[in-house]
Amino acid sequence: MEYRERILRFIEEIKTSCLPSVSMDFVVFGFHEGQLKVLLLKWQGVDTWMLPGGRVRMDENMEDAAYRSLRERTGLAEVFLQQFHTFGNVIRNTYYAMEETRTKLGFSAEDFEGLPHRDISVGFYALVEYTKVNPTPGLELALDPFTEQIQWCNVEEVPQLLFDHNEMIQVALKTLRRQLSYQPIGYTLLPDQFTMPQLQQLYETILGQRLDRRNFQKRMLSYGILERGEKFQNGGAYKAPYLYRFDREKYQQALAEERLLVV
Amino acid sequence: MEYRERILRFIEEIKTSCLPSVSMDFVVFGFHEGQLKVLLLKWQGVDTWMLPGGRVRMDENMEDAAYRSLRERTGLAEVFLQQFHTFGNVIRNTYYAMEETRTKLGFSAEDFEGLPHRDISVGFYALVEYTKVNPTPGLELALDPFTEQIQWCNVEEVPQLLFDHNEMIQVALKTLRRQLSYQPIGYTLLPDQFTMPQLQQLYETILGQRLDRRNFQKRMLSYGILERGEKFQNGGAYKAPYLYRFDREKYQQALAEERLLVV
Repeated sequence: MEYRERILRFIEEIKTSCLPSVSMDFVVFGFHEGQLKVLLLKWQGVDTWMLPGGRVRMDENMEDAAYRSLRERTGLAEVFLQQFHTFGNVIRNTYYAMEETRTKLGFSAEDFEGLPHRDISVGFYALVEYTKVNPTPGLELALDPFTEQIQWCNVEEVPQLLFDHNEMIQVALKTLRRQLSYQPIGYTLLPDQFTMPQLQQLYETILGQRLDRRNFQKRMLSYGILERGEKFQNGGAYKAPYLYRFDREKYQQALAEERLLVV
Repeated sequence: MEYRERILRFIEEIKTSCLPSVSMDFVVFGFHEGQLKVLLLKWQGVDTWMLPGGRVRMDENMEDAAYRSLRERTGLAEVFLQQFHTFGNVIRNTYYAMEETRTKLGFSAEDFEGLPHRDISVGFYALVEYTKVNPTPGLELALDPFTEQIQWCNVEEVPQLLFDHNEMIQVALKTLRRQLSYQPIGYTLLPDQFTMPQLQQLYETILGQRLDRRNFQKRMLSYGILERGEKFQNGGAYKAPYLYRFDREKYQQALAEERLLVV
């Protein structure tokens, strides 16, 4: 199917099958080599990056729609996904940005007629273990005719995005910080096995502050959610650090009991 | 204006001026005599209680719409209002509950034609100092032709409500518990002056658990957000407790710096 035709079909689907005036946007965090990253994508013909997003079908629960949309746009499945804030300002995506985008895509006002004039957007954050995923654009192009490019970006280096997507990332980060003590953030962002310094680095990166090494280790071990394994063999190291893994059952239990894992 | 006419005008306003498929609902918490309460209302002709709610006008920011709706429905103004979760299940308010309500109100399917078939609802919680407010139904009846009765209810004694409103209260309570350490929950729920036992009682009620008296007092005083005033004169008391008030500036500052006020 031709590009233009695919988009017109996509618009028709939105108008007939989706909740009007509700959209969703996804802030997908990954952690790699001491760096927190976020997933950005670019539409064909638009030179500005944006967050992946989606819409809710009339017969679909919103949470299901979020998982489906994220999978269609990025290929990511079975990720930790959590709504964090709903964005409802008038100017967040009204005419200006929409028209600019439409024009760049080469469509007329008539082509887009009947689309909602304004959306509120439910923001979700996703946490993915960086080495395990390979985000892919256009998994099913019929479902997402726009995406051309998809890419990780360091959170400190995010460029100016479309709509209010920069604000969304900031609010997601703030939420992540606050939820660090009661969401399974550790095991969704780290590989199966990790060293105590790697775990500490994750906490420091999210919290944006340095933590005392001894206290951190002491507190982390006190929660009974870590299993110690072999020593990490990194060649010439003087003192090889131990490798740890999360005891997922105990981690989940601690979270379910609302025990705060404060560092 | 006659009741029926007022409602039809209200429906017309929703159809022409509001975001389709988006609603808002409010869980208003008050604290009185060691008891956490929530505000419920009843529509004319419907025998089931529900939460106050509202809709977003096309030209209005969602947060502004929340304050406006709460004021129109309950008379409450200048309250602490915070979104906590967006509810988007298909069955949350579809035909069954809507039709039942419509029928009870004495309207035909045609009267309600053109109304959205399904809403997602953004849940907000509000915290009000119980003795300072006097919730009033029908403040401006033209804006809310439904409300007949409005009333505080102990959170443990909430009856079966319309739609998914019981679930909303549970999620709001859970959020309140988690946010106790970084939202100004203390001074929005207590009178200007209070004793340390009253403050502790508020925390215990929200957290649903007993706290150690000495530790609580020590921690609370350590945050530097309380000012000690006169002794509370309660007649024959053996040891009169001190009255405290919040230093709002320091409280706000602590929250702005994301210092967790953990008890």
